Amino acid sequence: MTYVTFPLDKPLDFAAIGRLCIDLNANEIHRPMEETMTFTKYVGGSPANITIGMARLGLQTAFIGKIANDQMGRFIEDYLQRNRIETTNVVTDQTGAVTGLAFTEIKSPTDCSILMYRDNAADLLLTPAEVQESLIARAKVLLISGTALAQSPSREAVFQALSYAKKHGAVIVFDLDYRPYTWKSAEETATYYNLAAEKCDIILGTREEFDMMERFETNPEKDDRITAAKWFDYSAKIVIIKHGKEGSIAYTPDGVGHRAKSFPAKVVKTFGAGDSYAAGFIYGIMQGWTIEKSMEYGSAAACIVISSHSCSDAMPTAAQVDDYIERCNRGEITAS
Amino acid sequence: MTYVTFPLDKPLDFAAIGRLCIDLNANEIHRPMEETMTFTKYVGGSPANITIGMARLGLQTAFIGKIANDQMGRFIEDYLQRNRIETTNVVTDQTGAVTGLAFTEIKSPTDCSILMYRDNAADLLLTPAEVQESLIARAKVLLISGTALAQSPSREAVFQALSYAKKHGAVIVFDLDYRPYTWKSAEETATYYNLAAEKCDIILGTREEFDMMERFETNPEKDDRITAAKWFDYSAKIVIIKHGKEGSIAYTPDGVGHRAKSFPAKVVKTFGAGDSYAAGFIYGIMQGWTIEKSMEYGSAAACIVISSHSCSDAMPTAAQVDDYIERCNRGEITAS
Amino acid sequence: MTYVTFPLDKPLDFAAIGRLCIDLNANEIHRPMEETMTFTKYVGGSPANITIGMARLGLQTAFIGKIANDQMGRFIEDYLQRNRIETTNVVTDQTGAVTGLAFTEIKSPTDCSILMYRDNAADLLLTPAEVQESLIARAKVLLISGTALAQSPSREAVFQALSYAKKHGAVIVFDLDYRPYTWKSAEETATYYNLAAEKCDIILGTREEFDMMERFETNPEKDDRITAAKWFDYSAKIVIIKHGKEGSIAYTPDGVGHRAKSFPAKVVKTFGAGDSYAAGFIYGIMQGWTIEKSMEYGSAAACIVISSHSCSDAMPTAAQVDDYIERCNRGEITAS
Amino acid sequence: MTYVTFPLDKPLDFAAIGRLCIDLNANEIHRPMEETMTFTKYVGGSPANITIGMARLGLQTAFIGKIANDQMGRFIEDYLQRNRIETTNVVTDQTGAVTGLAFTEIKSPTDCSILMYRDNAADLLLTPAEVQESLIARAKVLLISGTALAQSPSREAVFQALSYAKKHGAVIVFDLDYRPYTWKSAEETATYYNLAAEKCDIILGTREEFDMMERFETNPEKDDRITAAKWFDYSAKIVIIKHGKEGSIAYTPDGVGHRAKSFPAKVVKTFGAGDSYAAGFIYGIMQGWTIEKSMEYGSAAACIVISSHSCSDAMPTAAQVDDYIERCNRGEITAS
Repeated sequence: MTYVTFPLDKPLDFAAIGRLCIDLNANEIHRPMEETMTFTKYVGGSPANITIGMARLGLQTAFIGKIANDQMGRFIEDYLQRNRIETTNVVTDQTGAVTGLAFTEIKSPTDCSILMYRDNAADLLLTPAEVQESLIARAKVLLISGTALAQSPSREAVFQALSYAKKHGAVIVFDLDYRPYTWKSAEETATYYNLAAEKCDIILGTREEFDMMERFETNPEKDDRITAAKWFDYSAKIVIIKHGKEGSIAYTPDGVGHRAKSFPAKVVKTFGAGDSYAAGFIYGIMQGWTIEKSMEYGSAAACIVISSHSCSDAMPTAAQVDDYIERCNRGEITAS
Repeated sequence: MTYVTFPLDKPLDFAAIGRLCIDLNANEIHRPMEETMTFTKYVGGSPANITIGMARLGLQTAFIGKIANDQMGRFIEDYLQRNRIETTNVVTDQTGAVTGLAFTEIKSPTDCSILMYRDNAADLLLTPAEVQESLIARAKVLLISGTALAQSPSREAVFQALSYAKKHGAVIVFDLDYRPYTWKSAEETATYYNLAAEKCDIILGTREEFDMMERFETNPEKDDRITAAKWFDYSAKIVIIKHGKEGSIAYTPDGVGHRAKSFPAKVVKTFGAGDSYAAGFIYGIMQGWTIEKSMEYGSAAACIVISSHSCSDAMPTAAQVDDYIERCNRGEITAS
Repeated sequence: MTYVTFPLDKPLDFAAIGRLCIDLNANEIHRPMEETMTFTKYVGGSPANITIGMARLGLQTAFIGKIANDQMGRFIEDYLQRNRIETTNVVTDQTGAVTGLAFTEIKSPTDCSILMYRDNAADLLLTPAEVQESLIARAKVLLISGTALAQSPSREAVFQALSYAKKHGAVIVFDLDYRPYTWKSAEETATYYNLAAEKCDIILGTREEFDMMERFETNPEKDDRITAAKWFDYSAKIVIIKHGKEGSIAYTPDGVGHRAKSFPAKVVKTFGAGDSYAAGFIYGIMQGWTIEKSMEYGSAAACIVISSHSCSDAMPTAAQVDDYIERCNRGEITAS
Repeated sequence: MTYVTFPLDKPLDFAAIGRLCIDLNANEIHRPMEETMTFTKYVGGSPANITIGMARLGLQTAFIGKIANDQMGRFIEDYLQRNRIETTNVVTDQTGAVTGLAFTEIKSPTDCSILMYRDNAADLLLTPAEVQESLIARAKVLLISGTALAQSPSREAVFQALSYAKKHGAVIVFDLDYRPYTWKSAEETATYYNLAAEKCDIILGTREEFDMMERFETNPEKDDRITAAKWFDYSAKIVIIKHGKEGSIAYTPDGVGHRAKSFPAKVVKTFGAGDSYAAGFIYGIMQGWTIEKSMEYGSAAACIVISSHSCSDAMPTAAQVDDYIERCNRGEITAS
């Protein structure tokens, strides 16, 4: 059954708006960051990673965001272009803002953390007037990400992008991606997440992220179905709620909770799992696949990313995902 | 024809959320404020004035807001209580914020201005968690006012109040009341006015206020009907657009533009006209009167207020409005 | 004995830098402000009051400060000019700042309080570059006041004025006038008060104000002589420490603690006592009078101000002070 | 001739207060940072570098500063301790501040730049109350650095440290180290640099840094002798003014301008030259050497640092400096 219909006549498959930053990944891993002496630089930020993932899978993509007017900003723009991502709406800040940073610490495959630099980050300075209506008018899908709602004027830019997407009929995907940095209060967070989610067709998040959104509501059992039902009353057609190791469930307005099998992986670190999953899943839905098959595709993409050192740079091509699934099916890959 | 249906089983006729401040009105008028030596203190703020107006007209009312923990704040709370306005959700600030002030200058009946003190104003510090769901659940009508959207956390408190009003079926009135103070940019203003207006049943504002909301839209002729039609696609049932001396027009989803006659007045100053008009109009609609009769009632209430020295304190009773209309009809009142 | 020598060849007797604001004095007094309905407007701010006092006493005076670009600001400038105070260095703010306000509450002659509006106050926006070196070069005396140290850039403007006064040989008077508003911390306060006091010839303050400055020092008994001795090691020649009802003591580097008799008064309120005392005292010292006679003159000036409704507007002329002293000496005035 | 006398009975040779951060040095050099893929982590910040330099030269040292409560902060503290620098007054921030960062770009030996992260930096949050009087009481020398004056409360902490140093008789060294980041205006900078410099015995800076301090003064020819003379009127005994390639001149109150020969070096990058020069020079003066010999020692130390990849980590021991000078004297080292 088809839950989401895409405007197939539009030339741009996928556009995302939001965070665009630098990951500095520890080269010496399996130790605390205090003992890490060198770091490798990658493009990062959840919506940037997903867009890179979509581009690697072969889609026409574009990014809407703001970069610092410095060496880090120029590196990001260049990397997007080398990945064939349209950057006509990647604006360069002129106020002296910096590029957000994420230093990663990999103590063990299951004990990873991030040291964030988000003060005065350029990506949060995107303004509503800088969002190009013409770009969104060309796009089949607009993806928004929660971190871009954390501050003005980026927050208003996201709402303006949502307004354009609604007007021009793009399918809207909301990757909740809640991170406490830069938000002033949990109440503020709940307010804007809810206002944005009302306008979205596909919502992906963890159970904890949905709990945060239900701060002023009554769902004492944290019941997925109550959560999903709220959004079906607005615009949603698919609500994916992730339960960590217990797996994810995709809810649809017909009352079905869709689950998919997972794949083994030789885990290096957990960063990037969600972004690659989102890319793989949205790609599948856009191909007209079932929700279950799309979820499997997302899982396989995630396995590839968590088996390698980077997030963005490890995003797989469709051939790599297909190959991974086949090798799993042949039993050639086992968990670490 | 009835355009708006009120939940008649609810005990509280009217609740408003937002600005609550002090007017300091020049005693020596018809001169520049430089030459004014004494000022008289009144409760002020558009939603407070409207609530006082509704209470004077005989309705059960309540206010949702925040006051400074000082002599000005205590004066405000006492004044509301003396006007039989419920203050259970008037919260006292504990951070050292001050009461917003408006010094009025009346150079002539048509040349009035306001000197505003809005820095660190207590009313803008109301938080979403302080808004009482139970109060809104008891209310037939919730009125919101644009100035409360100007800053966090008051902005989020308004969206939370809107969420409760939607959940419990209150009719929502939006008095645009745009004032440039405290807003960071015109873009920010447009974003939140639009997000709020999507959820409202009755929207009142000037043509210039609606223009401000259409900053990112296409309405080159500033056509009232294009403006109104947008909101009928969301929740609106009545959109009143005020054209200054050319009068106001109330648009309804059936395509009708309702107009009403106006009344003469001996004008002292123009302050408070909009607030008394709003009170009279909403009162009329709640009585089940036609839109035209309600607009006339609002006009008569406004005439009474602009003929006197204060805003809040001059809000008329129903008997006073009836009397004014009768005297106008008998030709006993002529314009100044 | 002469403790301070003034550069008598300079044409301007007295210049002050700092706070310049509006007092709104309750007209209905001897009640809480909640019950006050009308207020009368006066120029206020400690250094402004002192300057008005000096002008009334017949000296050539000037003010260095910043006013809001509004009706309040224009009223202040006009009032200074009508009192023959030079305003060539009274700068008008262009950023939308407001005029600081002080609402006074007079519950009884001994129970007075002030409700302050100091957010975004124009006087705190004076910059170092706006301070006219040529004006200070013409002045016998520069008075600085602690409130102007509370925020940047006013804080730096005061240090720049001190630098010019040192360079050109003006006698520097520091009226501590500590008020907690707008200071971020008690530590910050102590730092800048001390840096400024190091450069001053005459320092006036209450015992509590000197305690605040000794936050990082050792004076467990709060011993006036330890306090004064510190400043004699820098530039001070007179240190006046006020002990409320026990009276004031003026310390000098020769080890003497000077005291003076006080006068009876029919007290209306206590506001303005310190400012009129400072004006009378500095005037006396500039006349070459003994410290004791100068202190008496300050006391008499203070008695006149606390017997009337305003501060600035009640500042006495020399004839009025002389007359007050004579009437007290004849026993015509007794305490209220 | 001896210009500065040190309190030889104190057990701690050298204490510095101020910036303490992380350098991330490009591993792939001689290219724009856009093309640098990996970075190596070092302790950085001018006063930290100087302290490390003093410790390497064999002195008893301590640091007064604040570090972030994260992996970067812990790395810094550990590095200081491994270099035998006392860290009893290195305070850990508890507000979520981050460690300042400096990404270095080395395009060529003469074309180097720095990308700074100074927003919400922990080192600028040191408060006056956190400065240990007992530590400063034990120190022969206190070094302050201009960047710590850039913001409150670090600015007040420096003035408090100066106050303690004066009280206990430490020799005070001011390394101007002006960097525009975090200062609000050039006027503000001039104000606090001057207030601090008034209290210092030895002042080191570039001609441009002294120009910045003379913003409100008259020195049209930028005459070193006018500059130096001003500070001799306060506390200074040595004022070193650096003229880039033309070399440095050390002025003393006797009117002498001291110059020293320089050494050749195989330059990798210019970062760290000033810090190692300062360490070498102060070390020499503390040994009782002539100013000229101390300047030579500083130059040799600087040559060693600019010939290597890091700043802090390349600070030489006394044996290394001696060896470098000897090899230069034997003609074994020539310029690159």
